[in-house]
Amino acid sequence: MYEPRYARRAEGMRASEIRELLKLLEKPGIISFAGGIPDPELFPRDAIGNAYHRILADRALSGQALQYSVSEGYQPLRIWIAAHMRKLGVPATPDNILVTSGSQQALEFLGKLFITAGDTALVTAPTYLGALQAFSAYEPRYDVLRPDTGNRTPSSYREAAAVNGGSVKFAYVVPDFANPTGETLSAEARSGLIALAEDLDCPIIEDTAYVDLRFEGESVPAIQALDVARHGGDLNASRVIYCGTFSKTLTPGLRIGWACAAEPVIRRLTLIKQASDLNSSLINQMVMERLATETYDSQVAKAAKHYRARRDAMLNALETNMPAGVTWTRPEGGLFIWVRLPDQFDGGELLRRSISDAGVAFVPGAAFFTDGTGRNTIRLSYSLPTEAQIADGIARLGKLIATAI
Amino acid sequence: MYEPRYARRAEGMRASEIRELLKLLEKPGIISFAGGIPDPELFPRDAIGNAYHRILADRALSGQALQYSVSEGYQPLRIWIAAHMRKLGVPATPDNILVTSGSQQALEFLGKLFITAGDTALVTAPTYLGALQAFSAYEPRYDVLRPDTGNRTPSSYREAAAVNGGSVKFAYVVPDFANPTGETLSAEARSGLIALAEDLDCPIIEDTAYVDLRFEGESVPAIQALDVARHGGDLNASRVIYCGTFSKTLTPGLRIGWACAAEPVIRRLTLIKQASDLNSSLINQMVMERLATETYDSQVAKAAKHYRARRDAMLNALETNMPAGVTWTRPEGGLFIWVRLPDQFDGGELLRRSISDAGVAFVPGAAFFTDGTGRNTIRLSYSLPTEAQIADGIARLGKLIATAI
Repeated sequence: MYEPRYARRAEGMRASEIRELLKLLEKPGIISFAGGIPDPELFPRDAIGNAYHRILADRALSGQALQYSVSEGYQPLRIWIAAHMRKLGVPATPDNILVTSGSQQALEFLGKLFITAGDTALVTAPTYLGALQAFSAYEPRYDVLRPDTGNRTPSSYREAAAVNGGSVKFAYVVPDFANPTGETLSAEARSGLIALAEDLDCPIIEDTAYVDLRFEGESVPAIQALDVARHGGDLNASRVIYCGTFSKTLTPGLRIGWACAAEPVIRRLTLIKQASDLNSSLINQMVMERLATETYDSQVAKAAKHYRARRDAMLNALETNMPAGVTWTRPEGGLFIWVRLPDQFDGGELLRRSISDAGVAFVPGAAFFTDGTGRNTIRLSYSLPTEAQIADGIARLGKLIATAI
Repeated sequence: MYEPRYARRAEGMRASEIRELLKLLEKPGIISFAGGIPDPELFPRDAIGNAYHRILADRALSGQALQYSVSEGYQPLRIWIAAHMRKLGVPATPDNILVTSGSQQALEFLGKLFITAGDTALVTAPTYLGALQAFSAYEPRYDVLRPDTGNRTPSSYREAAAVNGGSVKFAYVVPDFANPTGETLSAEARSGLIALAEDLDCPIIEDTAYVDLRFEGESVPAIQALDVARHGGDLNASRVIYCGTFSKTLTPGLRIGWACAAEPVIRRLTLIKQASDLNSSLINQMVMERLATETYDSQVAKAAKHYRARRDAMLNALETNMPAGVTWTRPEGGLFIWVRLPDQFDGGELLRRSISDAGVAFVPGAAFFTDGTGRNTIRLSYSLPTEAQIADGIARLGKLIATAI
């Protein structure tokens, strides 16, 4: 009856693959390292309940909270976020902030803003699958960034993009405790990325979903802060678009994230927001503003302590149980450890056997690559299982891998 | 630094025009007939507060409510919506339902699903501005439907689309108490639209934002119900995509709407939802499910009574105060009356004078046309002003128009 434009692209999105994986989580008896979602034990439900109650008990406030609202977001929340960005060395005002329905929505808007079919998006390999989903709707070509081990030359990226009939429209990175690898870009790697983007004259999208979940070590300056410093402290001259979220620190259930960028970018993203869903739920934005004001620092500290213990349990279990030839990252924060298996392994095949023989789930690493590589990698998350489950599950997985080597 | 794809299209979106109008609403002393938003007096804030409280007081339930969730929506809410659709003669199951962040988001997804730049979208003139904003991001050509007075021939639409290098991808209508005209399509007009879409082999997007706010007269069957009946009761064979919302009956503040369509369409829209914002706020969906279950019918009755009194006040005031040569619609429901002024009038110019001389705001009708016509029309909403304000404001507006004739 109709030929949807989107159908041919849905194939490349591998969303169904993730859905199948998520269904595995629901099987009883499976220890799952597959999800990357926060532990609901940490959600500040009393503070959230109190915030909803206070807003809805007030007649005037409730009338506002339950009404349509401005697309750019609830002004007091934008003020809080701007102050938060200033602590990171980014001199933001509320006019530099757009409230989005999670940072996923910001990524989707940026795909819409920048990409015409055939243009090039620079991404790391591996990278966050949700970003690929968001961008892929606009049919870019992907080219590979290697900010830590050395990017190609600007002209190499430029020429490869031109061969495809487009140009490089942005570079996308998750610089802190990346999904899926758990790794963090050094300040040098960040500066190198800025230099590359300057030469290519393209924006950098900085996705900071996990940045606050640091367990140890020194924070590395935000790419946006480094770039603003190069422009004499002028955020409106920066090419970096910072995507933040409350999902990993407070709760993903209110669907509140943000983009912080130069005002002209925010104005355009606000028009996209208006066309997309008018505004994010105002009552949720009002609750989030109260929650952030009252609990942000304590929640971040609590979450970091909680996930640190689980990371330690997983690193210990890997050390004890993995055979020689298996290597893994040692993240200083976030929710993920990335495991590299000997070359003969296939993560997808291992998953099937792991589910049936070991009762352990994880995500095959190949899902996070745009180029079909990474077959011998897997992503482990320690966010949901207890320390005992982590020890047990990694022991079982180690035994399975050892028998297959 | 960068050349955003979206920038050239933002010009055509007239969003800034609306924003300027909304600012007028904030001026003290202005009686505004400009907004089209529901009266916050009607929001069931106690029921909403109770629903949030019950969910958050339950440890397990709150952990679920504040977590990420499935992209298709909260299953009990999909079940409620499917049952609601069955009452309309549409034999839906939950697999035919996608929960969206307001029906605006459904419109945006449909633009993304169907339109490639240069394709044709059929819309009425005038039509809902938010739909134009949602579709325009995908750069369609618009052609004009006249479902009540007579559409052109299918081959005329087809050939005009081909000249532009694309094809007709869908027909979009607001069949009940349309924004901006307040008018309702007859069953004959609906059947004619289905016949046209069959000939063009394209989907129909049925936007029903106001359908439940009927004050009097007989309901007209949903276009989707008529089309399903032509297909032996098989919704999965229907070409109609129904977009519904709770925004006008319960509250727009939770940002909950839905699309109801054949399963293959819903599956594709679900992938788009996942890429766009993962899922709508689950806690809001859970609240809406309780709210719909407990209050839907009583809220609809209350809202219809409330707005009926205001419509009556506006129709009476128009009758009393408008000079000869001015005509207007007599809506059987919804929030809008559409006024046609003598040809020499310009709605935009009248607005400027009306604000300064009469202290009355409204929306110039030209904003709702894709073809630059409609300059001598204006949209009046009676949703927010009291009956006394309506009488006063229309009297002042009538006097202003009379002196200008």
